[in-house]
Amino acid sequence: MGIIVQKYGGTSVDGPERIKNVAARVCRSVDEGHQVVVVVSAQGDTTDSLLEMAQAISTRPPKRELDMLLATGEQISIALLAMAIDTLGYKAISLTGAQGGIMTDEQHTKAKIRKVNAERITAELERGSIVIVAGFQGVTPGNDITTLGRGGSDTTAVAVAAALDAEICEIYTDVTGVYSADPRIVPEARLLPQVGYDEMLELASLGALILQPRAVEVAAIYGVPLHVRSSFTESPGTIVREVEDMEKARSVTGVAYDDNCAQITIIGVPEPVNILRLVFAALAREGINVDMIVKTSGGESTTTLSFTVQRSDLDAALEIIHHLNGADQWEITANEDVAKVSIVGAGMMTNPGVAAAMFDVLADEGVPVELVTTSEIKVSCLVPRNRLREAVTACHSRFCLSDAE
Amino acid sequence: MGIIVQKYGGTSVDGPERIKNVAARVCRSVDEGHQVVVVVSAQGDTTDSLLEMAQAISTRPPKRELDMLLATGEQISIALLAMAIDTLGYKAISLTGAQGGIMTDEQHTKAKIRKVNAERITAELERGSIVIVAGFQGVTPGNDITTLGRGGSDTTAVAVAAALDAEICEIYTDVTGVYSADPRIVPEARLLPQVGYDEMLELASLGALILQPRAVEVAAIYGVPLHVRSSFTESPGTIVREVEDMEKARSVTGVAYDDNCAQITIIGVPEPVNILRLVFAALAREGINVDMIVKTSGGESTTTLSFTVQRSDLDAALEIIHHLNGADQWEITANEDVAKVSIVGAGMMTNPGVAAAMFDVLADEGVPVELVTTSEIKVSCLVPRNRLREAVTACHSRFCLSDAE
Repeated sequence: MGIIVQKYGGTSVDGPERIKNVAARVCRSVDEGHQVVVVVSAQGDTTDSLLEMAQAISTRPPKRELDMLLATGEQISIALLAMAIDTLGYKAISLTGAQGGIMTDEQHTKAKIRKVNAERITAELERGSIVIVAGFQGVTPGNDITTLGRGGSDTTAVAVAAALDAEICEIYTDVTGVYSADPRIVPEARLLPQVGYDEMLELASLGALILQPRAVEVAAIYGVPLHVRSSFTESPGTIVREVEDMEKARSVTGVAYDDNCAQITIIGVPEPVNILRLVFAALAREGINVDMIVKTSGGESTTTLSFTVQRSDLDAALEIIHHLNGADQWEITANEDVAKVSIVGAGMMTNPGVAAAMFDVLADEGVPVELVTTSEIKVSCLVPRNRLREAVTACHSRFCLSDAE
Repeated sequence: MGIIVQKYGGTSVDGPERIKNVAARVCRSVDEGHQVVVVVSAQGDTTDSLLEMAQAISTRPPKRELDMLLATGEQISIALLAMAIDTLGYKAISLTGAQGGIMTDEQHTKAKIRKVNAERITAELERGSIVIVAGFQGVTPGNDITTLGRGGSDTTAVAVAAALDAEICEIYTDVTGVYSADPRIVPEARLLPQVGYDEMLELASLGALILQPRAVEVAAIYGVPLHVRSSFTESPGTIVREVEDMEKARSVTGVAYDDNCAQITIIGVPEPVNILRLVFAALAREGINVDMIVKTSGGESTTTLSFTVQRSDLDAALEIIHHLNGADQWEITANEDVAKVSIVGAGMMTNPGVAAAMFDVLADEGVPVELVTTSEIKVSCLVPRNRLREAVTACHSRFCLSDAE
């Protein structure tokens, strides 16, 4: 048997009892004959507490120093987990991101992993140790500590798995796997035993934040199979891997939603103005991400632009737009009461008519659609937020997602 | 003006307001034209909280992992202090022990500094930054994090000052300096403007734990002048440096005491038994430190041995002694109600009769003396603990320690 990488999130290591539980699970994998590398996040709300400490000192702390501070969260987790494994009589060694060879670029607070120098990890595995690597953090070529941004521990785990050519990367979380829809909305939603990387990527970026999209991207590039499962039960979860038999795939795998969006509409922009470039360059400079974008021509040679942003970015986005050159001539409206519902499925590419079926079912339910965007494996519709539940349930039912394959 | 190293203890950085206070003080030193390196400890009781977290997992955590855990305490402090300095508009950079080049041996939880690779610190100073180094921690040649044991931050500061050939190493603490006696016992005790390394060493190891003895040793070896002062006031404290004019020094500089000791006496050991080797080798194996030692011959070819240990070690020490070969033939007694009073002064070497004067004054006060030990610059007497206050006050008065030099 080969190497497996296991990643445990903040909830899984929150408190001594949960840490002991994780230790027991890790040791079982060793008993099964695996060499195990464990990647852990900071405990529970440690990161938030550290951020509060920083805020008490400075409203704008330097990012390098923020990384220095935040990196202590995972360092505490890895040390405690190593101690817990030691009490079970197994050999364990904890490594910070720097010690584990997680080399990143220099973008503090949102660094990207450049490569993993796995010599130390490999050497410790060969000495018979369980190796525990701090997630979410790395080190620059200049030996400065960086963090990868929230959820970066997933990316650490996948990158380490890729570097070690691991059999599988297990992502332990507080949900049992990836479902065909949010079970809180659609009780008959089905646990998906397997999804493709692309599908996972769309599901991940659509609010089903079980896995960091960056982690899925890295997994796809290096072909690392992922197993998303619960750290509180023994049952298998969802395997994310390259879907080989594309023809057989059902056209829609799941329904996702995002109720954290807001819509901005700009009407009456004179045709010569390159409104797309003007607006999105300004928003990008301030780090505001834009999601669905629709541009149409209105009457009398004017343009209408409508797009969505995260609801928490709405005020900042409006402020920026109102200050753009010529904005006093436009009609600018905002709508916070919207939500996005999406159907995702790798089979969509080869099944025409899926988008039409979605519009059909929404029309049958009387749910108005404000905006539509599509990709090869996804169709997203912006709907009124108070109709979201009906929309998700109707789509889930229409595409028979509770039936087993 | 040259480089100064400032060390701030845990109380000085406990909470955002105190950190801002330290930041302001550091920046004032920069305004005065100094290049400043700051060494900080973990905030307040952070180290204790971390130890509790470890205890909740394991009663015997591996020392390497304990170091991994404890090192986060100072890492938090350095990051927060760098942020606080940044808000004042000064350039600062924090460095962990490893980044600061604090190279140690591999004795986890009580590592010793082998050398300081000061390249990074020097480079950052040359870039115009205030450099903040985590105290108490270092790194092994194999890149593992170590800690230097409690109070190790003093040693870090002195070692960095030595490596940088700093003008002075300022030790900021919660007391205003070194006094001729504990002001809580002797209200007329005088702040000593200057003491020699040897005197400080004796005072430090006698319970006046203002400075780590190891730090004083390193300062003496490299001739680093120390300035012990309060982080809460502006007034100068005590300078610790090589005392040049030995002849002029007063015979006694200060009176110290240690009320955390206990006496063990073993009576009736037959002469052929090498009781010293037998007892002290056994205690050393268990890491129990022995302080005052007196051995006399009793009647009928037997030996009497009496010595002191820390009160917290008494039970363990008795347990060990009772299990020694032949112990069932000895009479073993313990006395917890003792304390040690010491007079310290570099001038003692050239002033005979100082010890006699001490015995004299204790006899005048009717304070019985149980044990006596002497060194070149110190005389210590073990007295009943309930007579300690009288003994300290009488010695302080006898040697005129409240008079200015």
